[in-house]
Amino acid sequence: MSLRSRRSLGPEKHCKCIKTESKPIGRFIEKVEIIASDSHCAETEIIATLKNTREEVCLNPEAPWVKRVIKNIMSKKP
Amino acid sequence: MSLRSRRSLGPEKHCKCIKTESKPIGRFIEKVEIIASDSHCAETEIIATLKNTREEVCLNPEAPWVKRVIKNIMSKKP
Repeated sequence: MSLRSRRSLGPEKHCKCIKTESKPIGRFIEKVEIIASDSHCAETEIIATLKNTREEVCLNPEAPWVKRVIKNIMSKKP
Repeated sequence: MSLRSRRSLGPEKHCKCIKTESKPIGRFIEKVEIIASDSHCAETEIIATLKNTREEVCLNPEAPWVKRVIKNIMSKKP
């Protein structure tokens, strides 16, 4: 599973995501970071950290599968 | 605004959140991290980073205002 949507590691003064992952990879996701748009980046950005590899991958906030993954993570009961 | 719901900074081998913030602080939030439950922590945890202070605060995944804040952040168009 080659993940091209690298997260740029520069200082926080610009958007972090170059591309977003198109394949639904929900089952590999350990956590997601949702960054509100601000003066540095006009878009909301979502960065997922994958289980095992701990790789960071950008996700499209508007993709239905991304919204579903976040909803599922939030509604998981102990 | 005193935020008591500190995030424990120990290694990632247990739940991070001790308490969650009860007051709706959506407008202060720069980003949120949603951590799926796993073998180390049976609960989904949400950790918000506040604007300006960059303080980390735990939020209750089941609180309506938290769900609304996440939905708003995700739906913000450029």
